[in-house]
Amino acid sequence: MRLIGKEEIENIAIGAALLGTGGGGDPFVGKMMALQAIEEHGPVTLLDVDEVKDSDVIVPSAMMGAPTVLVEKIPSGDEALRAFKSLEKVLNKNIKATMPIEAGGVNSLLPIALAATIGLPVVDADGMGRAFPELQMVTFHLNDVSTTPMVLADEKGNNIVLETVDGKWAEKIARSATMTMGGSIMNAIYPMTGKQVKESSIRHSLTLEEKIGRTIKEAKANKYNPITELLKLLDGFHLFSGKVTDIERQTDGGFVRGEAKIEGLDDFSGENCYLNFQNEHLLAKTDKEVLCMTPDLICVIDTETGLPITTEGLRYGARATVIGLPADEKWRTTKGIEVAGPKYFGYDYDYTPVETLNEGQAVK
Amino acid sequence: MRLIGKEEIENIAIGAALLGTGGGGDPFVGKMMALQAIEEHGPVTLLDVDEVKDSDVIVPSAMMGAPTVLVEKIPSGDEALRAFKSLEKVLNKNIKATMPIEAGGVNSLLPIALAATIGLPVVDADGMGRAFPELQMVTFHLNDVSTTPMVLADEKGNNIVLETVDGKWAEKIARSATMTMGGSIMNAIYPMTGKQVKESSIRHSLTLEEKIGRTIKEAKANKYNPITELLKLLDGFHLFSGKVTDIERQTDGGFVRGEAKIEGLDDFSGENCYLNFQNEHLLAKTDKEVLCMTPDLICVIDTETGLPITTEGLRYGARATVIGLPADEKWRTTKGIEVAGPKYFGYDYDYTPVETLNEGQAVK
Repeated sequence: MRLIGKEEIENIAIGAALLGTGGGGDPFVGKMMALQAIEEHGPVTLLDVDEVKDSDVIVPSAMMGAPTVLVEKIPSGDEALRAFKSLEKVLNKNIKATMPIEAGGVNSLLPIALAATIGLPVVDADGMGRAFPELQMVTFHLNDVSTTPMVLADEKGNNIVLETVDGKWAEKIARSATMTMGGSIMNAIYPMTGKQVKESSIRHSLTLEEKIGRTIKEAKANKYNPITELLKLLDGFHLFSGKVTDIERQTDGGFVRGEAKIEGLDDFSGENCYLNFQNEHLLAKTDKEVLCMTPDLICVIDTETGLPITTEGLRYGARATVIGLPADEKWRTTKGIEVAGPKYFGYDYDYTPVETLNEGQAVK
Repeated sequence: MRLIGKEEIENIAIGAALLGTGGGGDPFVGKMMALQAIEEHGPVTLLDVDEVKDSDVIVPSAMMGAPTVLVEKIPSGDEALRAFKSLEKVLNKNIKATMPIEAGGVNSLLPIALAATIGLPVVDADGMGRAFPELQMVTFHLNDVSTTPMVLADEKGNNIVLETVDGKWAEKIARSATMTMGGSIMNAIYPMTGKQVKESSIRHSLTLEEKIGRTIKEAKANKYNPITELLKLLDGFHLFSGKVTDIERQTDGGFVRGEAKIEGLDDFSGENCYLNFQNEHLLAKTDKEVLCMTPDLICVIDTETGLPITTEGLRYGARATVIGLPADEKWRTTKGIEVAGPKYFGYDYDYTPVETLNEGQAVK
């Protein structure tokens, strides 16, 4: 148990942008909300998973919608609170803590803002260890935790309680409701017991994000190469470096889908790297070979600043470094690959771990 | 208070098809469900509005969706029950009776099926006195009854509780959820006290539908002209008779929109009549003049059988008679015209009552 204050939030925001693998929304929005909530209500208690009681009710909170919309439509702060109160009524139980559903972007920080506002602790864990575009792509689901009852709340005051037969129906109905409600909503989702959190979550996500942020900041302060430091910290692979020369992006059915092309520079000169994304980067390949595929993490970093770039931030001419990180072991199971592997997203590849694809790479 | 059995249901189904003004779904589906429920559970008690206690909780039940889908996707019968149980939990009160939300098509008869199944009475009233395509187009709304909390339930077992800031948001969100859930759902909607039912509903709808059905059947048995008898019963106007020569119909955004053209025969020879519909007929005009406009009722009858035809039933070559009926006075108020008048549907006409448009018509 420790307290999360402003400095921690600044670092978490940087780490969340990296693990967001291009999606998860602009962490800036979440950071501002978390900072403001802490300013008003004081620091938030971060609980280790082991500090949660087996019988406690824990409810992740998240924003749902296409990241492009999230950037433009900032929540009032009141939605998450209404969603929680409404879910407590449905469950007929008090919620003891919240947590992020994903380690990435805005959704790493919104639970901190909510926790500060309603005086709950946050659990140091999440359901992805990265960001993913669909509701059922969480380790909770891999452990058969029910997605519903869930509550969707918008900034206008509309409220929806969903109880569906499975997570895919929750995703479909919530996604279309989100579009109707203006493109983004807050939800209270995957209500769990402490026992379920222990079994199904990915641990220490917020602490890892904080470490990532601190590593980048310290490297820059000490004039080390932040990318090298990150690769060491995260057991990552340097997949590509170059200049963004093409970016196609379309918002469709609640998602931002597209492809970015990076022309190689230096060691990668003469090669091209293509990044395919649906909110998050899902596939990185060159003209010759696949470099990394979902559920492993494909993170894009501004070569000059050492800071993560989201897919919205990919601009023509930007100098970009692509790194690959191994996904949590929970994702590398048969069910994990089924739920979030390349074939689910329509890429006709058998999942191959980033370590195998980049065997013998010098920088590790 | 009286009992509704099989004969009453047969007659109500015919009347519901007429007042459905072309929409409201095929009453055949509702009739089959009501007959089966009564077969299993016995007849249903029909309550006059004055027999309801002011403090009783009354909840209309209805199917939502494009009629074209309703014809093909028959509910399991279990959805309405689940929606009611779920709404009782939200309200934390027992529901004492149900009623139709509209007098038309499938939605006149589904509440009878539900009532038989769960052993509740049905109130002899509705919220339209006809059918209309959108959720807020009910006299309850004209009296500021809240649309929500409402529950949507599908045949797969998915359940949605909506609490919205107003009826238009309820309509928007419920409509898109309905599309996502397969095109039609059952809902429990506009929960009311008995007092609110007394103030805001249109009374004796089921009894009127039954009378319409009986009038048509008796006229046919006695070789009277059923259309002449109907016009007498309903203070209606004979707007047009002819042959259907063109019909355009498209399903779009949860509605069936289109136009039918009828070429005049006999007294109407040399003229054409055009019917514009969005689920229901909303505007009837000739090349020269408007014959009837929403919220007044435009009903199409098969000239040969004397039976009502829905917009789905309009076929090339069919002999059709169009009659116009005055809407309930609740619809002829400023707010009523605003909610369901011609301009709301994009027809640039000031509302003019069917009596004025057809002044001096002989047959009345």
